[in-house]
Amino acid sequence: MDQAILRAARDLLVERGYSGTSIEAIARRAKVAKTSIYRRWKRRDDLLFRAAFAFDRGDPKGSGSFADRINHSVRLTARELRSPIARSALPGLVEACLRVDDPLPLGRIAEIEIASIGERLNESSSRKLTTKQARDEAALVYDLYHGVVIMRLLRGERLSAAFVKRTLEIIFDGVLK
Amino acid sequence: MDQAILRAARDLLVERGYSGTSIEAIARRAKVAKTSIYRRWKRRDDLLFRAAFAFDRGDPKGSGSFADRINHSVRLTARELRSPIARSALPGLVEACLRVDDPLPLGRIAEIEIASIGERLNESSSRKLTTKQARDEAALVYDLYHGVVIMRLLRGERLSAAFVKRTLEIIFDGVLK
Repeated sequence: MDQAILRAARDLLVERGYSGTSIEAIARRAKVAKTSIYRRWKRRDDLLFRAAFAFDRGDPKGSGSFADRINHSVRLTARELRSPIARSALPGLVEACLRVDDPLPLGRIAEIEIASIGERLNESSSRKLTTKQARDEAALVYDLYHGVVIMRLLRGERLSAAFVKRTLEIIFDGVLK
Repeated sequence: MDQAILRAARDLLVERGYSGTSIEAIARRAKVAKTSIYRRWKRRDDLLFRAAFAFDRGDPKGSGSFADRINHSVRLTARELRSPIARSALPGLVEACLRVDDPLPLGRIAEIEIASIGERLNESSSRKLTTKQARDEAALVYDLYHGVVIMRLLRGERLSAAFVKRTLEIIFDGVLK
């Protein structure tokens, strides 16, 4: 049922954008009761965020090194944010994140990936990092590669293979020394 | 008169957000005719973008080196994006940038700053860069420092002095070698 709900949310996001995608409309499209949706996702923002960025966030194949992990994440982020769903949902997600009273828990979602980057960073870095240093550095890496992809989209510039390659080089050179 | 218009636009952005700030309302608030606004800004998006990011984008004091320039820009970007105006306008600006039929000319506005970064990069880099290489590298630098600040805001994380310092280090280490 989760899959049917997410699929309905994705279709509606593309058709109507973030503000036009209500829980009511999702329930109708997915042919489930509204209560079934609320049982699984307490807030509309959480469901829409998950629907817009539903690609497998699992770990990459390979050695599981810092380089593998970042390589995987940068490519995934570029792919996700280029999708019609993300383009349609992004303004609403930005608004939900900046809401002062009840912000989108992007922080919490991001923290899982940041922790995973931090672990690998600690194994790969030639510096000896404290837990806090590794976490701060991983958060910066996370923000750098998500941010650079968002800026490309906003400036209407292509996410070329050369761009991805150079972004990875700068992050590796700047972070791993 | 330009200043009165921009001030009215800024006040309305904070009060009503992007979608609520019409040219009509700006004209009323600034006590000017709508035609006076359209003479100066052909599109509402252009005016609102300029109003939201109106800080002096001029060159930094100092030697005018690549490091000075980026230092100046990162701090300015952090200050701008933290302001209540930017927070209020950001979702609407993102939407305007992603519009397929008539996108916000962020690309054109950014190009001026990218050109300035590119010039200084060519003087500071130990590599010999072609014009195209310098431009591409400058665009990546531009996207990195704007993007990382935006991601911090979206995750609700503080823009600390340590964060700014480390961002600058990574950009310098990764780019200038």
